[in-house]
Amino acid sequence: MKIQAPPGMRDFYPEEMRFQNWLFDAWRRVSRAFAFEEIDGPIFEHLDLYKKKSGEGIVSELFSFQDRGGRELAIRPEMTPTVARMLAARASSLPRPVKWFTIARMCRAEKPQRGRLREFFQWNCETFGEAGPLADAEQIAMLAALLREIGLGPDDVNIRISHRALAASLLQAEGVRPERTALAFQKLDRLEKWDSDADFARDWNAQLGADARAERVLALLRETSEEACLARCESAGEEGARVAADLRRLREHLDALGAADYCRFDLRIVRGLAYYTGTVFEAHGRSGELRAVAGGGRYDELVELLGGPPTPAIGFAMGDCVIAELLRELDRAPRLAESLDVYVIDADEALFPDALRLVADLRRQRLAVGFSYKRAAVSKQFKLAAARGARFAVVVGQELRAAGQAQVKDLTTGEQRSVRVADLRTDARAFAPRPDPKAGP
Amino acid sequence: MKIQAPPGMRDFYPEEMRFQNWLFDAWRRVSRAFAFEEIDGPIFEHLDLYKKKSGEGIVSELFSFQDRGGRELAIRPEMTPTVARMLAARASSLPRPVKWFTIARMCRAEKPQRGRLREFFQWNCETFGEAGPLADAEQIAMLAALLREIGLGPDDVNIRISHRALAASLLQAEGVRPERTALAFQKLDRLEKWDSDADFARDWNAQLGADARAERVLALLRETSEEACLARCESAGEEGARVAADLRRLREHLDALGAADYCRFDLRIVRGLAYYTGTVFEAHGRSGELRAVAGGGRYDELVELLGGPPTPAIGFAMGDCVIAELLRELDRAPRLAESLDVYVIDADEALFPDALRLVADLRRQRLAVGFSYKRAAVSKQFKLAAARGARFAVVVGQELRAAGQAQVKDLTTGEQRSVRVADLRTDARAFAPRPDPKAGP
Repeated sequence: MKIQAPPGMRDFYPEEMRFQNWLFDAWRRVSRAFAFEEIDGPIFEHLDLYKKKSGEGIVSELFSFQDRGGRELAIRPEMTPTVARMLAARASSLPRPVKWFTIARMCRAEKPQRGRLREFFQWNCETFGEAGPLADAEQIAMLAALLREIGLGPDDVNIRISHRALAASLLQAEGVRPERTALAFQKLDRLEKWDSDADFARDWNAQLGADARAERVLALLRETSEEACLARCESAGEEGARVAADLRRLREHLDALGAADYCRFDLRIVRGLAYYTGTVFEAHGRSGELRAVAGGGRYDELVELLGGPPTPAIGFAMGDCVIAELLRELDRAPRLAESLDVYVIDADEALFPDALRLVADLRRQRLAVGFSYKRAAVSKQFKLAAARGARFAVVVGQELRAAGQAQVKDLTTGEQRSVRVADLRTDARAFAPRPDPKAGP
Repeated sequence: MKIQAPPGMRDFYPEEMRFQNWLFDAWRRVSRAFAFEEIDGPIFEHLDLYKKKSGEGIVSELFSFQDRGGRELAIRPEMTPTVARMLAARASSLPRPVKWFTIARMCRAEKPQRGRLREFFQWNCETFGEAGPLADAEQIAMLAALLREIGLGPDDVNIRISHRALAASLLQAEGVRPERTALAFQKLDRLEKWDSDADFARDWNAQLGADARAERVLALLRETSEEACLARCESAGEEGARVAADLRRLREHLDALGAADYCRFDLRIVRGLAYYTGTVFEAHGRSGELRAVAGGGRYDELVELLGGPPTPAIGFAMGDCVIAELLRELDRAPRLAESLDVYVIDADEALFPDALRLVADLRRQRLAVGFSYKRAAVSKQFKLAAARGARFAVVVGQELRAAGQAQVKDLTTGEQRSVRVADLRTDARAFAPRPDPKAGP
């Protein structure tokens, strides 16, 4: 009997793994450019960590188990609790701001069905210790830089930005009582799930109609002029004026950081999670068919909740699955074939030990070098070289014994020339690196 | 209340993460040079996969749980079952040989105590579809190349090689009955655990003394002449002669592949796992205090056991913990500080938007660029630059408005010069990359 991977889990064969590594490398490259440092935590945590952040309801959404010491543990379903825990543990010794990223594997107990994965990878970026809009701007600019890095421009994806306090003050100006704001946010977060505005309005009015009519809320949400929203916010008291001033500075910083072309203001973005406290943002494919490809926001209270000192914090996450779908949908996923730098071919079995020696010397120079396990005709070995995506072939033949030379063939251009083997052993320049279409200038 | 990481699990703060990435990069670089392709599988598998390979006894050594569909699942305690399962699923379509590596996180339900980790990372390399000693030699040469790559020479670590069939035929020549060979291997595998040879002998003789006396077995094991062992093996019939011939070819290939200086023949290496069928090998620190830093061998029957066609296979694994300990013990662990390419400093708050614009332009060129969130005196910003390990500082001052220039200071040499900002925006060559002490020629 064959055993399969559990449902909802993925096997990454070389072709899928090349895509994962391409994406992870882009995440890492952009994070490092933005001076974020990589960290990681354990694959499972105390179950309490997740209950404390998200309440008992979270338990059904994750894989939990007991160890033999009776501890309740859970495979991590998200990274922020781990990162906030790690920050809290060293809060007094870490110089601020702390800018951390993770590229982390995690699991959620989704019901196994097509397209619903139980395991995924997430790029998670967090900034601790900076309350001002500069930290928010840098995070959003980093998200924009990643999109640009993987070939998605502002015409493909936009980043929709809002602010919990701004949305709250506008809703309250419409009549929503402060204690009902959380419920109103829940409704807003689910707005796109309804088939029509009428369905949304019926649901809203049933629970919140006494505070504010759905029709007025919908008009508010559809207000696309950032300036109009900010002006209304400024007139809504001291807190409103402070929030509006922060948002104006955020906009200036995004402009200076070259990210403004991706960004737009959108009051409909509230993010479902209860713990966001300020700026919230989501990246969406322009076609709108997919879920958000990334999302985050400010959560200034979580570190304290997890036992640390009061610490302003902002973070966002991007999963590997939705962004991969979007790239495929736009036909923008990279074509990543296997590629070797050199394939070493022996023209004669007696020369095979010499060929092997050359293989070892080239590998020591960090070239990716293949050769055939089976002794075979030269033409057959050339076929194997092509099948493995080799850029160059080196044929070790009698010329080696006679003149210390081997034939180097460029498998792209077909050019062939004799090269001194002694030179190849220490100097890989004969094998110019293949130009990387994704590399910068 | 602060929540901690579960016992036996590690938090990787930036300094620990830099070491992990340094090690993983070396694993990946060497694997690619050897034309191995990276794959990965799910973090948990059906529990049956592990039972099938290792028997019911394995269950107490791993973290298992049920999903809501009643499936018995387990976090992977090793990678070979997953890799063999993946190979079996595509055995008919994959061109041979298949050379795969993984850099994988895994967990074992160790009792939490100091130095016993429940979570670790492992470099796992497997070759499928090639039965001959060339595949064995390439694996061992790859292990040697990794050791060299991380700065461990043959004086620091050696690779001890044996062969199950050779050891079996030598033991049988001493009188051990074929059906008792597995038991004899178990005893040999635990030889180093005894305080003295006398303790080993007492244990051996109690169970195997009727077959062969411990004293003779010990003399056999201490036979350091590979030639003497091979000669005895050759005289032990057809199978012995075949094994000896393979081992001679293995030695020739290791020599051609430049790995012979690490390798020595050692009959005490049997590897505890029951499924090995041929060549077995382990890398050990020469000081001998630590467990094996890597180990592997040929397992030609496992793919079939997991539902695939009969497939010759050889693989080895290296964990992150023991090799890190050895590097520290030898004071060979790299010193990996945070490092930025450039730190952008504004000499005047009014110039901060210009400074931010320069930050964005440099980051787009993939430089790692920092700046201060707080506006502060230039001297304070220089201190922050030094604290973050910046190689260059760029001071954006009035010179920018007057002449389009900024000061670039090399923080290693102290050299300072004026540079046109327009040039910096598109050409990062002003910031020559810091020479990487780990990079090759």
